[in-house]
Amino acid sequence: MSFELSLNTGTTPNLSLDEAIRYTAEAGLSHIGLWRHLLVDGAEAAAKAVSAAGLSVSSLCRGGFLTSSDAEGQAAALEENRAAIREAAALGTGELIMVVGGLPAAAHVLGGTGDRADKDVAAARARVADRLAELVPYAAEHGVRLVLEALHPMYAADRAVLSTLDQALDLAAPHSASAVGVVVDTFHVWWDPRLAQAITRAGLEGRLASYQVCDFNLPIASDALKSRGMMGDGYVDFSAISLAVAQAGYTGPVEVEIFNEEINNQDPALTLATMKERYEQLVLPSLQTASALV
Amino acid sequence: MSFELSLNTGTTPNLSLDEAIRYTAEAGLSHIGLWRHLLVDGAEAAAKAVSAAGLSVSSLCRGGFLTSSDAEGQAAALEENRAAIREAAALGTGELIMVVGGLPAAAHVLGGTGDRADKDVAAARARVADRLAELVPYAAEHGVRLVLEALHPMYAADRAVLSTLDQALDLAAPHSASAVGVVVDTFHVWWDPRLAQAITRAGLEGRLASYQVCDFNLPIASDALKSRGMMGDGYVDFSAISLAVAQAGYTGPVEVEIFNEEINNQDPALTLATMKERYEQLVLPSLQTASALV
Repeated sequence: MSFELSLNTGTTPNLSLDEAIRYTAEAGLSHIGLWRHLLVDGAEAAAKAVSAAGLSVSSLCRGGFLTSSDAEGQAAALEENRAAIREAAALGTGELIMVVGGLPAAAHVLGGTGDRADKDVAAARARVADRLAELVPYAAEHGVRLVLEALHPMYAADRAVLSTLDQALDLAAPHSASAVGVVVDTFHVWWDPRLAQAITRAGLEGRLASYQVCDFNLPIASDALKSRGMMGDGYVDFSAISLAVAQAGYTGPVEVEIFNEEINNQDPALTLATMKERYEQLVLPSLQTASALV
Repeated sequence: MSFELSLNTGTTPNLSLDEAIRYTAEAGLSHIGLWRHLLVDGAEAAAKAVSAAGLSVSSLCRGGFLTSSDAEGQAAALEENRAAIREAAALGTGELIMVVGGLPAAAHVLGGTGDRADKDVAAARARVADRLAELVPYAAEHGVRLVLEALHPMYAADRAVLSTLDQALDLAAPHSASAVGVVVDTFHVWWDPRLAQAITRAGLEGRLASYQVCDFNLPIASDALKSRGMMGDGYVDFSAISLAVAQAGYTGPVEVEIFNEEINNQDPALTLATMKERYEQLVLPSLQTASALV
């Protein structure tokens, strides 16, 4: 089997872990992508519940937030990421999605602390590289890959100073492909003029660890994080990106991760039915065509 | 003289041409960047008014919107851009800022028409290159440089499929540096991991035609276009970018172009006073330091 559709639980934020598992299984899916806050009874219990429903975990969201400029913040980030690595291992997924964090000056936007004057994006990126190097051995011991996520540049200040797939690959370069990978999330990278080349590069370097699909909607939502849309509702050309991803050799599960006020609050069964239909219409055919040619 | 501060009239949208000229001169500035819709009595009359106040025009905003996929739309775009070129020439500015346009699928967002199914960003970029080639001889005849503006990727769908400075330089490459240049607008490009290299490249290629400064604010405004802020109010490191721009050899005027609901509607004299102060505090010192080293 290839290209199994997976529900990322960010798409159904009102569901508990058990509910998300039940809806996913009832929709006939084989995979689920979990957010850490759902693991209220621990990762082992979650692993059992997922497995009992006949599902597999496609990825764990998320580690990261590695840009703190003070020793205390850096130690806390390492501790938090080690916990996430252990949880990923317990869940039987090799893929821990990493959102690297923003500028110290903008940490307050997400409720954190940081030097409001520190807007040095190059220095923040250097700290991400340093923290990553500190986490890699621990992740490798646990059989977990740190999967770097390039976020849309509209989140560069507050969420991720990592904005392009090429930049993610450069950041991964010092480490083995089994320890550090990258994810292609259509919302974040569709606009990148170097995207096709970067996806090819990711495949050649063996780092293509996850493919997440959702659309880019306009207007940008009042909470900019929620501008993601159901495939087909926005401006992403899923055909072109999916072709590139499969031609680069990716055959793994495909997660749908949509932060969108309306979709997040509608009947989850409707969401799952719609995402299946749109996936089969807009994404899967290109993946299969390209895969047949590889 | 170098690095003369210039008011881009996008910052004071409630002012007529004459009012904008008066406020700019009264604030002691030597340059003004004009938007075309202010030229209600024609470019020649505007040129006289600007000159009578002792000012020079730093750039004309804007040409562009070249992505139409039908013959009628393409002809209309060429006609519109030829008019803009003639106006720039009449105003005595060599720099016509170009916002290249978005996807046909999103043309309706800005009131245009286009094929709602056409989300092919690569094809849209190819059409920009084609239209640019058609406009270059006309611009050259008029002594006007077409200045490509990379817009923040949050506007890639509806406003510009041109998102990075490197991409702008690639698009400019087939043409002479006197015919096609690029602008560095801090809001649009601050997040780019390749920014410093791209600015250096722009300098080496002789294409650095304009430097526009304003900040990147959070949260993103409900009208995403208006997320621009006064220098110092957001997350841009003006020191790093200004150093790179001056080291690349730029010595021209520096425009302040801020679309921001609050700033756009406050007393224009306050806006001009604040932008002068912030410019002298946050931007000019780095420009002068770097310039002294070149």
